[in-house]
Amino acid sequence: MEATRQSKFNEVAADLGYSFEGEIKIGGSYSSTVRNGNEIYVSGQVPRVGSTVVVTGRAGADVTLEDAQKAAKVCVMRALALLAQALGSLDRVESVLRISVFVQSAADFTQQSEVADAASEVLHFVLGKSGVHTRTSVGVYQLPKNATVEIDLIASVNDVI
Amino acid sequence: MEATRQSKFNEVAADLGYSFEGEIKIGGSYSSTVRNGNEIYVSGQVPRVGSTVVVTGRAGADVTLEDAQKAAKVCVMRALALLAQALGSLDRVESVLRISVFVQSAADFTQQSEVADAASEVLHFVLGKSGVHTRTSVGVYQLPKNATVEIDLIASVNDVI
Amino acid sequence: MEATRQSKFNEVAADLGYSFEGEIKIGGSYSSTVRNGNEIYVSGQVPRVGSTVVVTGRAGADVTLEDAQKAAKVCVMRALALLAQALGSLDRVESVLRISVFVQSAADFTQQSEVADAASEVLHFVLGKSGVHTRTSVGVYQLPKNATVEIDLIASVNDVI
Repeated sequence: MEATRQSKFNEVAADLGYSFEGEIKIGGSYSSTVRNGNEIYVSGQVPRVGSTVVVTGRAGADVTLEDAQKAAKVCVMRALALLAQALGSLDRVESVLRISVFVQSAADFTQQSEVADAASEVLHFVLGKSGVHTRTSVGVYQLPKNATVEIDLIASVNDVI
Repeated sequence: MEATRQSKFNEVAADLGYSFEGEIKIGGSYSSTVRNGNEIYVSGQVPRVGSTVVVTGRAGADVTLEDAQKAAKVCVMRALALLAQALGSLDRVESVLRISVFVQSAADFTQQSEVADAASEVLHFVLGKSGVHTRTSVGVYQLPKNATVEIDLIASVNDVI
Repeated sequence: MEATRQSKFNEVAADLGYSFEGEIKIGGSYSSTVRNGNEIYVSGQVPRVGSTVVVTGRAGADVTLEDAQKAAKVCVMRALALLAQALGSLDRVESVLRISVFVQSAADFTQQSEVADAASEVLHFVLGKSGVHTRTSVGVYQLPKNATVEIDLIASVNDVI
């Protein structure tokens, strides 16, 4: 089962053309994940690969829907990579309780849900039925480093696999 | 006790002039609720009734405070309807841990708390002392489908009623 | 140990030049904290001291990075004061699961993480290794009462100290 989730993760990474291997750097004096009981919180992820934010600017103005969706995929792949790092394997993810999807939006850009769909699809593809999740998508005015999308996540953990 | 909460819910629905019966549709590839232990997460709700978002536009510009408050009520009624669907009865709601209230705001509109108050009042009216909750209210730049308000919620569940 | 955390809290308060003693007022019909099991949710805090919001306006336009950081410190100090009130002592904070940092931003202000760093540093300073946390920082369009920053928080609680 581990091979399946990890190999699906690798498949998405290959599609995107990015590697999510190695330690994921986060800025600031905080942690990428914190565990409490069977819950694990993942900090807000921008579409950073290595030290570069790969999609920047305002959806609906500088950035197309398609590129914003790509940004959402990179954000959620980072979150999955952090879960794998923290838990030892993606197989320990029992369910995804919440993702919050913040989209840097033009004044009249109202497709935040369509942007978030790209992240939701990655979760379902990689985690199967454990990829079920609730979601909140909003259009914000700016994001750190001019990122187009930021996504945070709360998951539940299965320790007895 | 069930009659009381459900009848109060029906009373608010009648005041608003909307029905929240039947399956609530949500867009995208995610779930309206996810349960973990005694917690239940509800996805962000816009003021959609059937397939129509009934309050759209920017609070403080296109939309009055009063209409934004109506939007907030519809959002939180949808969240309550989803809780009733998922749990079988509103009586299983033990407490509301958090609501996040996102208000599509004009640049100088600073009454996000007053908008959120309308949602808080519905929670208290319908759930009584179980309607106690923490709250975060912010002014965002856009929301899905040009909705004026979006609200998500986390509740705790009592399984032994 | 209590003396240490509380005295560090007092040290930050003195640095800021504000008192966080006495009952903290919140507006609206909601609660400042709600507990569920070993988790405690704290409502979104603006940088209010007494009845005055001490830092207002848009970061990157009306407000410098330094003043926005000061706002973030006041927000998180309020959250800590509410935790101390609710739990009896800051020593009962086991870890901080999540802070969400909302920064009222100018269109081109992209230093939301740097603003949030100020809050993160207070958490580490006051709580030591229990100050570890995940974080989400976004740039919003407005906030209640024109506040520059709003921060909410979820913590875990240790009842056996």
